[in-house]
Amino acid sequence: MTPGRFVTLEGGEGVGKSTQIRALAAALEARGLEIVATREPGGSTGAEAIRTLLMEGSDDRWNARSEALLFAAARADHVARTIRPALARGAWVLCDRFVDSSRAYQGGGGGITDADLLALHGFGSEGLLPDRTFLLTVSLDEAARRLAERGGSDRMGSKPRDYQARLAARFAEMAGAESGRWRIVDADKSAEEVTAAIFAELVEWLP
Amino acid sequence: MTPGRFVTLEGGEGVGKSTQIRALAAALEARGLEIVATREPGGSTGAEAIRTLLMEGSDDRWNARSEALLFAAARADHVARTIRPALARGAWVLCDRFVDSSRAYQGGGGGITDADLLALHGFGSEGLLPDRTFLLTVSLDEAARRLAERGGSDRMGSKPRDYQARLAARFAEMAGAESGRWRIVDADKSAEEVTAAIFAELVEWLP
Repeated sequence: MTPGRFVTLEGGEGVGKSTQIRALAAALEARGLEIVATREPGGSTGAEAIRTLLMEGSDDRWNARSEALLFAAARADHVARTIRPALARGAWVLCDRFVDSSRAYQGGGGGITDADLLALHGFGSEGLLPDRTFLLTVSLDEAARRLAERGGSDRMGSKPRDYQARLAARFAEMAGAESGRWRIVDADKSAEEVTAAIFAELVEWLP
Repeated sequence: MTPGRFVTLEGGEGVGKSTQIRALAAALEARGLEIVATREPGGSTGAEAIRTLLMEGSDDRWNARSEALLFAAARADHVARTIRPALARGAWVLCDRFVDSSRAYQGGGGGITDADLLALHGFGSEGLLPDRTFLLTVSLDEAARRLAERGGSDRMGSKPRDYQARLAARFAEMAGAESGRWRIVDADKSAEEVTAAIFAELVEWLP
């Protein structure tokens, strides 16, 4: 049995993560792999229940520390109930956001230190990190255009433009600091080009 | 303004904590104090929503780490939204269970280290500890009798007798290790005697 691989897609809202997850799942399944396509917050029964608490309600429903603990609780359930069992049976896990989103959103924007966020992840999920993380980047104009097309946003996405710029900078900083795991993909390009660019970085692991 | 005081009641199920909170609130209000009577998990809008996740469902709904993170998230909300504001305006807070219940249940029974639980509490709630904590102890026979009277139990209380004995031992150990904060009260006695014993340990702080 080939070992399972854990691949995550990161970036702000409107960069095309969920579109890419679907395209990648199809491409990898065509190569005979079992694919578990999942997302955060959520991805398991318990984590989806926590997701409801996190995504609904007013912007100040949770303070930054409660929010970070809820994300860590959801992730711990997701890792224990969905991700680790899938990897153990040789499946590939494609996940739309993971701990790096907590590091960017609760850390960069929310004022929690990266060390504290990694400590919560260490406690809840034994510090599981992806084999590869793709940062999808778009220009702020393109991101705004896509979000407007999509219409509306949830509690996590309804933030002003300077917040989105700081978020993009924080993602770029994380990717630069751990370049073995991260790959940066220009997502201003067409969806097909983006899928091809990501796929090219995974072929080395294909059976 | 006299400073607010933070008083918690701890112990297993069926020791009479909620009865004592009501009696103490009445006695202290009669002395002109503002009393905030609260409980964990819960005690604020967000924490009550998390309480629902924690108390409902099957015994294995959450693994020990997700559960500890959810309790810490609920506590962080409770502390920030209910307890600290009350103390800041000079009210006394009487709380049915607090971090020591996490230390006893998730720590003693759940296999999480005390250091990890205190680290979560440090992160979420700046490590807030009560001014005084009362451990209500009953014999195991008496606890079983009261629980049977009450009928049924929830996800947290439906544990076998040897678990209850280990829990009692863990509470006693914590009380012994920090005797300045803890007082042990024999709750096999009548409710009125127990209230009087607790009240006697609080008079030094009365205005």
